[in-house]
Amino acid sequence: MKIIATKENLLDGINAVQKAVSNKNTIPILSGIFLKAVDNNLFFTATDLEIGIECRVPVQVIEEGEIVLPARHFSELVRKLPNTKIIINYLADIIGVSIQYDDAEVNLKGWPGEEFPLIPELEGNFSIEVETNILKNMIKQTLFATATDDNRPIFTGVLFELENNELHMVATDTHRLALRSGMLKNNQDKNISIIIPGKTLGEVNRIIKEDDEALIIKGNMNQVSFETQDTKIISRIIEGKFPNYKQVIPQEYKSLLKVKTKAFQETIERANLFSSEKDGTSIIKLVMDKGFLKITSRSEMGKVEEKITIFSEGESIEISFNAKYLLDALKIIDTEDLNITLSGPLSPGIIRSGNHNNFVYLILPLRTV
Amino acid sequence: MKIIATKENLLDGINAVQKAVSNKNTIPILSGIFLKAVDNNLFFTATDLEIGIECRVPVQVIEEGEIVLPARHFSELVRKLPNTKIIINYLADIIGVSIQYDDAEVNLKGWPGEEFPLIPELEGNFSIEVETNILKNMIKQTLFATATDDNRPIFTGVLFELENNELHMVATDTHRLALRSGMLKNNQDKNISIIIPGKTLGEVNRIIKEDDEALIIKGNMNQVSFETQDTKIISRIIEGKFPNYKQVIPQEYKSLLKVKTKAFQETIERANLFSSEKDGTSIIKLVMDKGFLKITSRSEMGKVEEKITIFSEGESIEISFNAKYLLDALKIIDTEDLNITLSGPLSPGIIRSGNHNNFVYLILPLRTV
Repeated sequence: MKIIATKENLLDGINAVQKAVSNKNTIPILSGIFLKAVDNNLFFTATDLEIGIECRVPVQVIEEGEIVLPARHFSELVRKLPNTKIIINYLADIIGVSIQYDDAEVNLKGWPGEEFPLIPELEGNFSIEVETNILKNMIKQTLFATATDDNRPIFTGVLFELENNELHMVATDTHRLALRSGMLKNNQDKNISIIIPGKTLGEVNRIIKEDDEALIIKGNMNQVSFETQDTKIISRIIEGKFPNYKQVIPQEYKSLLKVKTKAFQETIERANLFSSEKDGTSIIKLVMDKGFLKITSRSEMGKVEEKITIFSEGESIEISFNAKYLLDALKIIDTEDLNITLSGPLSPGIIRSGNHNNFVYLILPLRTV
Repeated sequence: MKIIATKENLLDGINAVQKAVSNKNTIPILSGIFLKAVDNNLFFTATDLEIGIECRVPVQVIEEGEIVLPARHFSELVRKLPNTKIIINYLADIIGVSIQYDDAEVNLKGWPGEEFPLIPELEGNFSIEVETNILKNMIKQTLFATATDDNRPIFTGVLFELENNELHMVATDTHRLALRSGMLKNNQDKNISIIIPGKTLGEVNRIIKEDDEALIIKGNMNQVSFETQDTKIISRIIEGKFPNYKQVIPQEYKSLLKVKTKAFQETIERANLFSSEKDGTSIIKLVMDKGFLKITSRSEMGKVEEKITIFSEGESIEISFNAKYLLDALKIIDTEDLNITLSGPLSPGIIRSGNHNNFVYLILPLRTV
């Protein structure tokens, strides 16, 4: 293998695949990045066997070939290289490469390319196309609601449900649930329901750029892949049955209130400073009144009490929520207003983004004395 | 106490004193910020009994008075307040304050002002005036060379030596030594030699702004203070005898080399990736040759070998240094060129900044096989 590249070329590839590099030490070669020079392209690949990422970067290939380089060393070195012509040359005697630039040469040992586990070609039984910025937004508005501990793996993933040409993404940690719907670009007859690991979607969101035009999602009952022109992310699917979210979201309510998203968020952030529980949980009490909402929180340090103006309909209800669960949703709602519907102090609250109905957030109330 | 202030007023005061707030739990009131409203000024004070910081902020004082508020809660709240008129009112019944803004009120419990330990007025036996930006630069060019472990407390401080109207600051961790000299603004006949805690100088550098004009340093054999118009930092002094740095810095050399600071730094940063020691130390070997310096470093991962052009005089010397100690100095030298003088592979190397002679850095070589 012999290639001529720029620092930017190499960084593009490294940055795309880096998060898939394994940080466990069980299989040493997985701590490396597989480089393959073919046809004036350099392919970068990394995998931890749960997720695999491949990225294609155009470079000048003098001699085709492959090598696996230790990811941390290679990436730190490339970040520190000058902006000059960089020549990477396979060195058989050390099973590694020489990296030449200016009046300098670095030798870096690696592993033989053929020992790197291949990322399998995914035989899809579905293939859909989504607009990149829509998918990124859908990930942002659901991923935060996944569970972080993996006692019950299905809650660390996001349900990805295709029904009547509409895509629904749903995440829950059993205290709250986020549902985001979006349209496909192509027609897709199949109804599909799979659970995608949260980590995978986080990577998709990080790697895929908003100006990447077409994004193809392929999948079967074991794997799913996200592909743009230059990048492919392939991931296992989480086995198990996701709870029926449609049953959980109530269709009726006793009270409705409309509130300005930003003002509500800032108020909750201040109230969040007064956590009344040992574990740091802040309990926020909301009291509806004519034309305003009273928000209170107290701890042994003191208390906060604020009023914000709202538009409201229906019964006056007093209800308490965990501040964190409110804030998580308020941070990712991008409409100026939002709607909250309530059915009583012990029934879940439902938050919807203001103008469109594509985001629904359910949050369980806290029982207070 | 009753005052009317802006968010910016309160933040200015909090930010200035915050680092002096004690994070030990032994004396609860020291986790607070002492507020004293006098004469249309609000004074903020915090101390951990080693360092004390006081800052004066102009506000509208309706009623004079004082209170100590829990620093973390008060500062987090203020950071989240809206940009509006903020009224702080003493509440005798909770020994605390009510903080009012818009349609909201926060109650925060604190401690009685009179229980806060007073920062003593410093009876100085010297008083000097330094230009702010010179002092900031002197701190930057010495503080990094202090020891981080406090086995031998004097090495966690910076020697502050006044001699013939010149100020010398010196720091060493016994592996390297940094000396920075600067002129005073006023005349000062006394010769003074005290050791100031590194933490104190870090705070001085953080708090003092370059546009603060006059900076007065006062001190005696126990304490030192740094004062601008609105801010005062007072600190204990470290007891002990600092090594005689003049004896340590050799006045003669066998070889001199001039090198571009930035190119040298970038080369060492790359070489630093190849650490040959278990503890992560990178040994950098420098080999002088006609018109260039060869820099090499190797580890079991590989090696790096670079050449940079230099201007040199005297014997060709081969010498090895710890990369970290070289980099620490290269990062804070602000001249385009620097000079290195060497006397042999086992004698200390001396780095001087290019154009002026006010910065001297001594670094012990490593013995290599």
